[in-house]
Amino acid sequence: MSELEGNCLVCQSGGPTAVINASLAGVIEEALNHECIEEIYGGLNGVVGLLNEDLVDLASESQQTIRLLKSSPGSALGTCKFAFKKDEDLERALEVFKAHNIRYFFYIGDSESMAMLDQLDALAKEQGFEMRIIGIPKTINNDISATDHTPGYGSIIKHVATTVREMACDNESIGEGDYVSILEVQGRNSGWIAAGAALAKRRDEPHDPPHIILLPEIAFDPEKFVADVQKVLAREKYCLIVVGEGLVDLDGNYVSAKASSTDAFGHVQLGGAGEFLRGVIETRLGVSARSCKLGVAGRAATHNASQADSDEAYQAGSAAVVQAVENGKSGKMITLQRAEADSYKCETGWVDLSDVPATSKQLPSEWINDDGISMNFPFVKYATPLIQGEVQLTWENGLPVFAKIRGSRVDKLLSAYEM
Amino acid sequence: MSELEGNCLVCQSGGPTAVINASLAGVIEEALNHECIEEIYGGLNGVVGLLNEDLVDLASESQQTIRLLKSSPGSALGTCKFAFKKDEDLERALEVFKAHNIRYFFYIGDSESMAMLDQLDALAKEQGFEMRIIGIPKTINNDISATDHTPGYGSIIKHVATTVREMACDNESIGEGDYVSILEVQGRNSGWIAAGAALAKRRDEPHDPPHIILLPEIAFDPEKFVADVQKVLAREKYCLIVVGEGLVDLDGNYVSAKASSTDAFGHVQLGGAGEFLRGVIETRLGVSARSCKLGVAGRAATHNASQADSDEAYQAGSAAVVQAVENGKSGKMITLQRAEADSYKCETGWVDLSDVPATSKQLPSEWINDDGISMNFPFVKYATPLIQGEVQLTWENGLPVFAKIRGSRVDKLLSAYEM
Repeated sequence: MSELEGNCLVCQSGGPTAVINASLAGVIEEALNHECIEEIYGGLNGVVGLLNEDLVDLASESQQTIRLLKSSPGSALGTCKFAFKKDEDLERALEVFKAHNIRYFFYIGDSESMAMLDQLDALAKEQGFEMRIIGIPKTINNDISATDHTPGYGSIIKHVATTVREMACDNESIGEGDYVSILEVQGRNSGWIAAGAALAKRRDEPHDPPHIILLPEIAFDPEKFVADVQKVLAREKYCLIVVGEGLVDLDGNYVSAKASSTDAFGHVQLGGAGEFLRGVIETRLGVSARSCKLGVAGRAATHNASQADSDEAYQAGSAAVVQAVENGKSGKMITLQRAEADSYKCETGWVDLSDVPATSKQLPSEWINDDGISMNFPFVKYATPLIQGEVQLTWENGLPVFAKIRGSRVDKLLSAYEM
Repeated sequence: MSELEGNCLVCQSGGPTAVINASLAGVIEEALNHECIEEIYGGLNGVVGLLNEDLVDLASESQQTIRLLKSSPGSALGTCKFAFKKDEDLERALEVFKAHNIRYFFYIGDSESMAMLDQLDALAKEQGFEMRIIGIPKTINNDISATDHTPGYGSIIKHVATTVREMACDNESIGEGDYVSILEVQGRNSGWIAAGAALAKRRDEPHDPPHIILLPEIAFDPEKFVADVQKVLAREKYCLIVVGEGLVDLDGNYVSAKASSTDAFGHVQLGGAGEFLRGVIETRLGVSARSCKLGVAGRAATHNASQADSDEAYQAGSAAVVQAVENGKSGKMITLQRAEADSYKCETGWVDLSDVPATSKQLPSEWINDDGISMNFPFVKYATPLIQGEVQLTWENGLPVFAKIRGSRVDKLLSAYEM
């Protein structure tokens, strides 16, 4: 395999995770190891920056900044939810690649990003522009089918399970059979994140909190729910519920849409699934309930990120460079695979971008217990290795310090592009 | 001062903090140092356990458990919001003290608990029962007047400010002048907790997030609010707002009551202040907003507790024992005081229980900037020392392990009491 000389570009897309910047660090540090890579560019705000030629010189960032990326939330290069809308977008991207001699493009994103990357790879081949395009998976939602799990998932479920354990101590000390609390977590379309709360239970202690996990996969039945809460309150001093934001009712509508409210200006606003459940409990059972909502603060909680997850995110970033440079791969997404071994070991692999299904990976229904509100051992066995170890932040004066890309701009060489 | 021989009892009351168990550990470990203290009892669920004679033998707990208390959320002995309702309650408490030869009573609680303790102390003196009663302050709300600050406050504001820094990284990477996010924090009656978010700003960077802090002390004016958000969005890529749950409108009503909603059963439920603001932003500005609500998960976040706060909580517990045993004090509450020194140093002192005002300590209005949405340097100077250092948890298999009091019961000696 002859080495391909030129510059590399890395972009981030979609919602940030606690470890997406670890993947970025993996790309940058690995790229520095390969002499065929001349410049290391970052595109600001995903492909939007690519189309606009908003590129920065990442090699000029300090080593301290790159190290700090491994423990910084957000997407340090900025991100976007933009998808190519027209053929011209793809062609423009190629133009930018050519203008800046970008021969390696690494894109950290979810399944939709991978589909876009596949188009880009096809066009480069069609135009005979030799380059290598590799996707690096990321999402807290763990819903990319082609990989065993996605970087970002381990950290959010570590934080959710930690929060459950902490709330449990708090609630238990207050409750005397009449205290209900609800933790709403992200997950619009699947219960992967809510399911992760199950890790808070100690082994062989099925009555440990969370007492009830409500998954978007299982339609919400208020009668069953009320009975489940009553059962827990009769048995325990309190009831701790975890709910995925995308909980739906028997008609398939989000329950959060029902918790609609009227604001100061007479307009309707949506509450969350947690607030909805609070209403159900208070009106049906006459006991007070409290809800917490992690929301964006959950996925940003790098202060409680999983070291395993961070390491794997970094590994995925670095593997992308290795596959592209050393193995000449293009049109692939890096995957995480469990190695055949007695204990958990994660290896990277790759899959053709065209084989990354657009549909979300579902939480396997056989991992949900028959009660519909708890997870069984195969899930716990799957998820436990992903939350091991604690990412250490850099603290200064009592607060964490995070990386900030200085962003030394690369000169634009093309005329402006109308998106 | 002749030493008073007998048993000691410690109870916890009110809402837990991230470090209330550190005070408990301080009491237990210091009590072990004094031979005049024979048995170390804990009362379950605050004074409820006292009246019911629900006592446990704390000396029989393992050293590991006591050490783990310093990094465990909740109130390990259980808590209560119960206040003595009748004279008989006080007399019953004295009976229990006498029956179990309890000569030292330590109560970890807020201002209301201190008032109760004062009554108890007066009754003991009236009855000529020699004993020593000391209060140990705790509350996330920082609203006990007689002390410079209260154990529990430093940890919650460390967590709030950390969360703001993390959300800022996340929001900044997404926003392009149209992203608004809201973090709702506890504080029903005062803005002490919301104000703590100001620590997230770097020194001399007034435009750092949080861009807007809404305090219960300042009536909510929707017109000014909308203008403030617009100003931030014009200047920054995003707008991060922190709001105390007790935000009130110009008529003095909780805004959260306005975010009332109709649940699945046609009943009204209250949303939170954060959801209320989301409604205002989305309807008035037409930009989408997201809210997070730390709620109980915030005060329980021992995984991000302040070491300074934990140390001071421990110190307060241990000082209570020293004051009672060595100095023969009774009817006092332990206080935290800033030592006269170049750098921050915290010392304990004491105040008569009768001098602990029942009214809440207000957030000084002179610490709020004229814009009404940010804090000035004197506040930052006051609060910064309280968040220094990071409590280290005990992690096992990726999750924190917390103390659980085994609770070896002390035999009851009295007949049951009707509360």
